[in-house]
Amino acid sequence: MHLSEITHPNQLHGLSIRQLQQIARQIRDKHLQTVAASGGHLGPGLGVVELTLALYQTLDLDHDKVIWDVGHQAYPHKLITGRYSRFHTLRQKDGVAGYLKRCENKFDHFGAGHASTSISAALGMALARDLKGEKFKVVAVIGDGALTGGMALEAINHAGHLPKTNLLVVLNDNEMSISPNVGAISRHLNKMRLSPPVQFLSDNLEEQVKQIPFVGDSLETELERFKEGMKRLAVPKVGAVFEELGITYMGPVDGHNLEELIATFKQAHKIAGPVLVHVATVKGKGYAIAEQDQVGYHAQSPFNLTTGKAIPSSKPKPPGYSKVFAHALVKLAENNPKIVGITAAMATGTGLDKLQAKLPQQYIDVGIAEQHAVTLAAGLACEGMRPVVAIYSTFLQRGYDQIVHDVCIQNLPVFFCMDRAGIVGADGPTHQGMYDIAYLRCLPNLVLMAPKDESELQRMVVTGVNHTDGPIAMRYPRGNGYGVPLMEEGWEPVEIGKGETLRHGDDVLLLGFGSTVYPAMQVAEILSEHGIQATVVNARFAKPLDTELILPLAQRIGRVVTLEEGCLMGGFGSAVAEALLDADVVVPVKRFGVPDVLVDHASPDQSKAELSLTSPQIAQEVLKAFFNKTLSSVS
Amino acid sequence: MHLSEITHPNQLHGLSIRQLQQIARQIRDKHLQTVAASGGHLGPGLGVVELTLALYQTLDLDHDKVIWDVGHQAYPHKLITGRYSRFHTLRQKDGVAGYLKRCENKFDHFGAGHASTSISAALGMALARDLKGEKFKVVAVIGDGALTGGMALEAINHAGHLPKTNLLVVLNDNEMSISPNVGAISRHLNKMRLSPPVQFLSDNLEEQVKQIPFVGDSLETELERFKEGMKRLAVPKVGAVFEELGITYMGPVDGHNLEELIATFKQAHKIAGPVLVHVATVKGKGYAIAEQDQVGYHAQSPFNLTTGKAIPSSKPKPPGYSKVFAHALVKLAENNPKIVGITAAMATGTGLDKLQAKLPQQYIDVGIAEQHAVTLAAGLACEGMRPVVAIYSTFLQRGYDQIVHDVCIQNLPVFFCMDRAGIVGADGPTHQGMYDIAYLRCLPNLVLMAPKDESELQRMVVTGVNHTDGPIAMRYPRGNGYGVPLMEEGWEPVEIGKGETLRHGDDVLLLGFGSTVYPAMQVAEILSEHGIQATVVNARFAKPLDTELILPLAQRIGRVVTLEEGCLMGGFGSAVAEALLDADVVVPVKRFGVPDVLVDHASPDQSKAELSLTSPQIAQEVLKAFFNKTLSSVS
Repeated sequence: MHLSEITHPNQLHGLSIRQLQQIARQIRDKHLQTVAASGGHLGPGLGVVELTLALYQTLDLDHDKVIWDVGHQAYPHKLITGRYSRFHTLRQKDGVAGYLKRCENKFDHFGAGHASTSISAALGMALARDLKGEKFKVVAVIGDGALTGGMALEAINHAGHLPKTNLLVVLNDNEMSISPNVGAISRHLNKMRLSPPVQFLSDNLEEQVKQIPFVGDSLETELERFKEGMKRLAVPKVGAVFEELGITYMGPVDGHNLEELIATFKQAHKIAGPVLVHVATVKGKGYAIAEQDQVGYHAQSPFNLTTGKAIPSSKPKPPGYSKVFAHALVKLAENNPKIVGITAAMATGTGLDKLQAKLPQQYIDVGIAEQHAVTLAAGLACEGMRPVVAIYSTFLQRGYDQIVHDVCIQNLPVFFCMDRAGIVGADGPTHQGMYDIAYLRCLPNLVLMAPKDESELQRMVVTGVNHTDGPIAMRYPRGNGYGVPLMEEGWEPVEIGKGETLRHGDDVLLLGFGSTVYPAMQVAEILSEHGIQATVVNARFAKPLDTELILPLAQRIGRVVTLEEGCLMGGFGSAVAEALLDADVVVPVKRFGVPDVLVDHASPDQSKAELSLTSPQIAQEVLKAFFNKTLSSVS
Repeated sequence: MHLSEITHPNQLHGLSIRQLQQIARQIRDKHLQTVAASGGHLGPGLGVVELTLALYQTLDLDHDKVIWDVGHQAYPHKLITGRYSRFHTLRQKDGVAGYLKRCENKFDHFGAGHASTSISAALGMALARDLKGEKFKVVAVIGDGALTGGMALEAINHAGHLPKTNLLVVLNDNEMSISPNVGAISRHLNKMRLSPPVQFLSDNLEEQVKQIPFVGDSLETELERFKEGMKRLAVPKVGAVFEELGITYMGPVDGHNLEELIATFKQAHKIAGPVLVHVATVKGKGYAIAEQDQVGYHAQSPFNLTTGKAIPSSKPKPPGYSKVFAHALVKLAENNPKIVGITAAMATGTGLDKLQAKLPQQYIDVGIAEQHAVTLAAGLACEGMRPVVAIYSTFLQRGYDQIVHDVCIQNLPVFFCMDRAGIVGADGPTHQGMYDIAYLRCLPNLVLMAPKDESELQRMVVTGVNHTDGPIAMRYPRGNGYGVPLMEEGWEPVEIGKGETLRHGDDVLLLGFGSTVYPAMQVAEILSEHGIQATVVNARFAKPLDTELILPLAQRIGRVVTLEEGCLMGGFGSAVAEALLDADVVVPVKRFGVPDVLVDHASPDQSKAELSLTSPQIAQEVLKAFFNKTLSSVS
């Protein structure tokens, strides 16, 4: 049987180990070819090929449900659930998504792009099953990186308290989040991995020890059994944490040995209550280059399969925002030992790996633990340090209460650097950085800024580090800057709450924030070609808004346009509208940004076009709404 | 020495056990008298009197720092840090706060009203201390209830990975959150509490076992040592989870035995790296009535110290919103087995204890674990259940990413019931339910509603349960309704996205949402007395806004006033402003709500007056702004 013939995972039933190994090879081939061609997550999927096949052979997928934590390890799952023929469209507009989505496939029982959600979701389904009196298996597959997230631990705490609720947790332990995993749980797992596999040791260790007889046996027998007990107890102490929390622990199992995996899963299905199977996998398995550079090949842009090297883009690109941010932060940190950079398992993505390399003592990776990251930063700020919390806009949602309760209410000077704010492209809805302006703007004491380009980003890094009066946040987009000249160091901070006027015109006022400032200038150019002269303001701050600058301009010009890369509801344009109305400046305001919809995976340009947010589209809308004109030619 | 003479906790140094016991009695007396007179948290403080005194006698509070998780267990701390003479002002406007606040006292190193933050904050301070090369002790005191919160577990995962960072975690284990604690961790702790105290067993158990000799000893010696080892290992297995996670475990210690506590803390201070001291306390200790009803006396309104009975208010009050909500939910759940009520350790506060009593199988308490609560609900919704998540507005912030990522993006029908939305009164800034409109309104697929009174709340409970198209949230205030007639059952749902007009007038349009609808009617009355006729609309929905109703009215009347009990930035008024501008209805809008400040503890009426949000104040402002009139008499 060829992989292409598998459209339902139950077709795996009855296949021999040899046949499964063939399918595994075909999955790896397809996976590698696809990601090499179009980019995507590489290492996670390659690591769970056997895990997926073995698990699915022991399940009836017409009824049983598998919840994959983060979708990025579920490419093998996708390939055996009817998406083989479309897999080449991976992460492309209208193509197969890079994560799981309930609406994409009936075997995607719970979508996820953020980590640590699977056990909670699976437990909810298991409880629903039992309440309805139904019978099916529920399985959560979670990585060791995701296991450091608080919500996964909350779920384990709950599951371990429900001995009658059948639930299988498969721990895909590859010793990594994106980077090598951190924390005490990870160390505990590593210890287990190094121990000899004690398979099918399903009962509580304590119970086993109790069975060691003390009375009536000969001294020799007693000691013999004691030694046997000691071997199990003292040396591996396998799964102690899980067992103590009421979860039956099985493992560790070689995650690339199909026979062992199948036998273990079959055994696990027979055990009542919550069970955890600890599977030791190798990230990038089967592609030597990825096995050797597991961080580098976690996810990839298109690359050459033979060399592993990224295919260079047709023309050289300006430096990315993350890189410029990291460079500035490292420079400042070199001269200011109070600066501490904090990441939640996103060292490479945020660029903080540069800080780690240069100034390791001023760098903290807390693992996938955004809540802890924020409050840890608050604690550092109490002691006069300058914590810089670099977390993507979408992941900072995880630390929202901590931002409110620990940082803003106490007015502590924590500097939040939100990478990937706005439209993120191929990662899709779970990763869009849409809501940060709305969810942060409402919080007292917080300053919220966004740079118009990578040069202004450098200035804002200094601004944030210098701002010791309270919390401050900076949002910046995914991707590359404009190629504007950059200074190596010595950046001038911007003044808090002050925008700048980039262009003067009397017909309409265009207000840009961050990544929409350059587009606002383009809109002004197009309008100018149609005889309309625009004033363009780089707001720089959504909070505090530069009302001294904006209000008189709005009053005088009488037509206001706001542009933002984020949700319209409660966003930057909403802030402008509020300020105008509060000041009795009653003028029409057209707000451009992301409407109240989810933005699917596509290239950022495709998404913007679909949302009518390209500069020509905006210019056309402005011409029509304010000047009753149409665009002469859409460029 | 009398308690009143203690203004600095270092004055405890050198006091004998007998003297400390006297101070303990005086703290309990003052604590009881104060809470009996003015209300507040009772049980938590009474349980940690000896813990506080013993800990502080072993510390130098001029340098060492104690971080109390949630401030509600810190009343003894307050009484020995210079607040004795003002303690009778507890929870009153301008008086001593009910929680800790950095701005209130130099010994309040980290404020908190939400649980589970202390270890993160303390670890941040400890890391800062080490980076600065300073020397002082950092201690986090955390309850067993708070230990189920994911962020506390994230912090333990991090701390256990830092063997060189000295940090003391004192676990105040009273087997309760507000209600009896739930979850596997709690069960683990209970097992330890029941085990014989194995004090000062500070090293890793595994290490101890390894020291048991195997070779060269006589068989008898070997067996003797083995049995000794077994006693430690198999029977108590004390602290296994913490030890495995790299935290030195000490305990359990009797939390009301000063000698034992002091000896243990002294020992703990000598141990390098992270240490956890497990203290077994009794909630309400020393006040028999509270010891016997630990849930009822967690917090109290003013009560008679002798009888323990609440002092009845001068006139009978209408039923509270929580009670009306719970009644409606139970009635509906009786006829709909798909309904499952979920609370995060707030059974009594939300009223879900009524559901627990009546339909225990349709009730889930996940402990202090809001993140897990939300995604568990998402999992239940996937299986066709009707999960109703009852969490206070302020605590729902903890589950924000889960609302976005697991519920809204997947458009799952979870019903969020946000109690304590708006101004909460004596609990102060950490508990104000200010931000929910702003942080929820921006999320696609979500419906957000608020009832004008307790009768409409009943209707909205049906509305929420019936809404199977996607997520829906309802916000309602703390406290009592208006005493309007209530139906026992058979409530009519309201139509999604439809408001109602309560009063007609041509001069100004008043838009109320939830708790501000009755005040809007009062404002209209006052305006009418001044010859101004207002239309009053009960918006019911902040999202979707009833634009069909509101836009024509706004266009025709030409003056719009919005009223809300929540933050102005991004809130309900902002939604109205957005809708008007989007529809080219360019009219003045005055928005009334909570400005960009923190609202301190006070009675709700005091807070509203201070924020200029009473009906006469709003009427006055409307008269002045729109009609150039002043109020003839402030009623």
